[in-house]
Amino acid sequence: MSLAQVLIAGKWRAANASGTFQSYDPALAEPIETEFPVSTWADCDEALTAAAEAFQALRKLPASKIAEFLEAFAARIEAAKDELVATASRETALPKNPRLEGNELPRTTGQLRQAAAAARDGAWALPTIDTKLGLASQLEAIGPVVVFGPNNFPLAFNSASGGDFAAAIAAGCPVIAKANSSHPLTTMLLAREAFAAVEATKLPKATVQLIYRTSHADGEKLVSDPRVGAIGYTGSRHAGLVLKAAADRAGKPIYLELSSVNPVVILPGALAEKGDDIAGQFTTSCLMGTGQFCTNPGLVVLVASEATEKFIAQLVGKFSAAPVGTLLSASVAKSLAAGVSTLTQSGAQVLVGGASGGGKGFSYANTLLRASGQQFLRNAAALQTEAFGNASLIVVCDSDSEAAQVLAQLEGNLTGCIYSHTGGADDPSYDLLAPILRQKVGRLINDKMPTGVAVSSAMNHGGPYPATGHPGFTAVGIPASMRRFGMLACYDGVRDHRLPATLQKKNPTGTLQRLINNSWTTADAE
Amino acid sequence: MSLAQVLIAGKWRAANASGTFQSYDPALAEPIETEFPVSTWADCDEALTAAAEAFQALRKLPASKIAEFLEAFAARIEAAKDELVATASRETALPKNPRLEGNELPRTTGQLRQAAAAARDGAWALPTIDTKLGLASQLEAIGPVVVFGPNNFPLAFNSASGGDFAAAIAAGCPVIAKANSSHPLTTMLLAREAFAAVEATKLPKATVQLIYRTSHADGEKLVSDPRVGAIGYTGSRHAGLVLKAAADRAGKPIYLELSSVNPVVILPGALAEKGDDIAGQFTTSCLMGTGQFCTNPGLVVLVASEATEKFIAQLVGKFSAAPVGTLLSASVAKSLAAGVSTLTQSGAQVLVGGASGGGKGFSYANTLLRASGQQFLRNAAALQTEAFGNASLIVVCDSDSEAAQVLAQLEGNLTGCIYSHTGGADDPSYDLLAPILRQKVGRLINDKMPTGVAVSSAMNHGGPYPATGHPGFTAVGIPASMRRFGMLACYDGVRDHRLPATLQKKNPTGTLQRLINNSWTTADAE
Repeated sequence: MSLAQVLIAGKWRAANASGTFQSYDPALAEPIETEFPVSTWADCDEALTAAAEAFQALRKLPASKIAEFLEAFAARIEAAKDELVATASRETALPKNPRLEGNELPRTTGQLRQAAAAARDGAWALPTIDTKLGLASQLEAIGPVVVFGPNNFPLAFNSASGGDFAAAIAAGCPVIAKANSSHPLTTMLLAREAFAAVEATKLPKATVQLIYRTSHADGEKLVSDPRVGAIGYTGSRHAGLVLKAAADRAGKPIYLELSSVNPVVILPGALAEKGDDIAGQFTTSCLMGTGQFCTNPGLVVLVASEATEKFIAQLVGKFSAAPVGTLLSASVAKSLAAGVSTLTQSGAQVLVGGASGGGKGFSYANTLLRASGQQFLRNAAALQTEAFGNASLIVVCDSDSEAAQVLAQLEGNLTGCIYSHTGGADDPSYDLLAPILRQKVGRLINDKMPTGVAVSSAMNHGGPYPATGHPGFTAVGIPASMRRFGMLACYDGVRDHRLPATLQKKNPTGTLQRLINNSWTTADAE
Repeated sequence: MSLAQVLIAGKWRAANASGTFQSYDPALAEPIETEFPVSTWADCDEALTAAAEAFQALRKLPASKIAEFLEAFAARIEAAKDELVATASRETALPKNPRLEGNELPRTTGQLRQAAAAARDGAWALPTIDTKLGLASQLEAIGPVVVFGPNNFPLAFNSASGGDFAAAIAAGCPVIAKANSSHPLTTMLLAREAFAAVEATKLPKATVQLIYRTSHADGEKLVSDPRVGAIGYTGSRHAGLVLKAAADRAGKPIYLELSSVNPVVILPGALAEKGDDIAGQFTTSCLMGTGQFCTNPGLVVLVASEATEKFIAQLVGKFSAAPVGTLLSASVAKSLAAGVSTLTQSGAQVLVGGASGGGKGFSYANTLLRASGQQFLRNAAALQTEAFGNASLIVVCDSDSEAAQVLAQLEGNLTGCIYSHTGGADDPSYDLLAPILRQKVGRLINDKMPTGVAVSSAMNHGGPYPATGHPGFTAVGIPASMRRFGMLACYDGVRDHRLPATLQKKNPTGTLQRLINNSWTTADAE
């Protein structure tokens, strides 16, 4: 059995290891042959020192060099596509097509290329000039970034290739990637391509580093180290909050994406107009990828009626008929069972599913639960427990105003949707509910399911705590996601030739949009 | 003796008080006659509920209404100028002119009017539209904001009228002002004018509320309450970090401005070229307002030479000759003495001053201390202790490279300056030191002292921890300071007429700058 190497300070080498672990083939529920090291603090320490040096070197390079790296990396991912997709599929049981090859891999390379374009352009940093006072400011790279990737997107959110990685690198920050334990082999392959691109484009070698796992104590030490600039974390709420506490104590910005039940409100007019359609959309959205999306619709809010009963019966039929997918890991299966159990213990009734198994390997039956609005209001904290996977809770309210009370009890979520009649029949209900939901979510959606998260400048994949750690930031969408990894750097009376090119009087590209004396312009400053 | 009333839920009323306190006339070292209540949790709770209701009401109003309030408040401050300036001067011993009437009061009203203009305009929120995907996003008010103002700017940073207040209100957030205990009477007068403006412009009555003091435990409970959106705090590091820990645990964004020694590096060429000038500038900057500025130059870095000795002798002469000002409070005098004592115990030598008294009321001698670069490097943490007030430490280094090591040991600061020869004689030293200093400060300055903080879109009054809690934000400079009080609100597929006016296809003013399909434009979206 081979033991994987870590990538530290520009070298693939044996880890200083306190132990090893293996990833699993979830469909077979069997371990995969490669072993991965649990690094000791010695590895973290060396990686931090190397990252701090790489950071200083990166600051001296033009952003175009960073863009070249991101593009070279994207091209290498495409060239290594077959191996990456096969490995990711083996480690996650996510289908090769369309999911990994058709969707996630192009998303990953597209994101890297968008980040490259944004780095080259420079407007992500909001360059701002006050010519009268001789002041200029912009966001500049915050320092080395530690990225903890989630289990559910082995490519597009991988700590060595995904959204946080692309945003941090494009902002000028070296990345220490910490592999997700459910797909370390995929992460190793991605880091291999990333490092080859680092070498090909002659970036500082420690621009990309990789460790697989540390002890919990070393993880906390890592995120609070003085050499770190910021942290990106996507994963479980419990582990995320432990890291947040450590980072907060050290004054280190940590950007978290933790949990979300993504409430979907379906108003009576919409149900009457296109209930069948919505039943299909919901089932697809809830069961796609075995429900393992951050934006999976985990809570449906309906108003009691005959049509609602018919709609629920339709969903039950569809959930029963749909094949049961494989879950990402034994621990996802375990936490899904625990989540469903919390919901039933809090009064929710199982309509369909509710038991482990039913699919290949790690699996859990497609599950729908039901509670009344009154039940929800009596036990709101427990009944909004995230059951990450192919399960959802339907809350049937007596009235609009009860639905309003239910929404008012929600904690922060990434998304919230309202389906309403296209002709305006639901408008009074919409006008009552939307302002409440608006305050609870990062992205408010009309008339479609939340699972799609486009990489767009106008996207927000964020939301109020505890969906994330700060409601002002997004993890998806360039350029905004890059701004998480910037510090505001102001220059006061600094001589023009000493300024970064993006803040000098002359517009460095002729196309850079800058806020000069309170107007956005591509002109030179006077 | 009269007992002041709190302003809660639109009423001036007696507090639920657990005790009382008085402010002092620092020049007489005597208490001022009015008593102020220490509120119990009942007051905080009522204020929070009222603020949450006011927040919902504010969200329904056009931003122009908020702008009218800010302008009405500015006009009322001007009308009440004599009383405000006299009271602030009595509570702080800051001179009426030019400081309070000529400088701080117009800064306060100017800031309120800039905030009004920014609210009316709307571009502060970075409205972003992706027409192809039907996505739109912008920053929207984060919720009620609790503002803790500092002792040193009774008008321009007052919790009921200053920078955080203006930014939060302009972003659409009601403010619960917590008075600084050294000038509660000034704060009460400002809140009186603010509330009169609230009534005149028909804003929700709890848009502005005022309490004077709480127990420490209630302060922590206040900043972590679910009804709070965010917190602005300017003050001592110790108290700030206690509040930060409480807010962090609750996932509440807290924007802190804590402490800073504002290093000033004077390179040999600059010293040769204009040492006399710089000696004058430094003395003015360090002793102005009895040194009680967040951006007071508390650490001077020089390279050893005869000219340096002459320069230091000049400073000693100027510090000896300058009148000793009055400090803001007994506690400032005490903490200044403690700060100087920490420095001397860590090896710094007193060149002039170093003893309490010498001025009217609460005072401490104008103080200069000296240490070598080697001493600093041996004891860097203690030797960068902030001695808030009219004191500064001079560090004389053997060489540029020792100066570089000194700068590398600095923690986060608001500002850092380098004086260098205008003809370029110091450029090699500048090129060595500036990149190190850049990483340590929010604002990098050339050839002038740091004490001036212009209210400009390009200002950064922020910096790396522990100068603030997050290096991406500024406390001064509109519109950037407003963005601290926004949550990112995205709309996905939301019907055009349901969108906020600023995100609808039609540009609501014809002049609002929006990022549409990645270009800033004032055109309508298509």
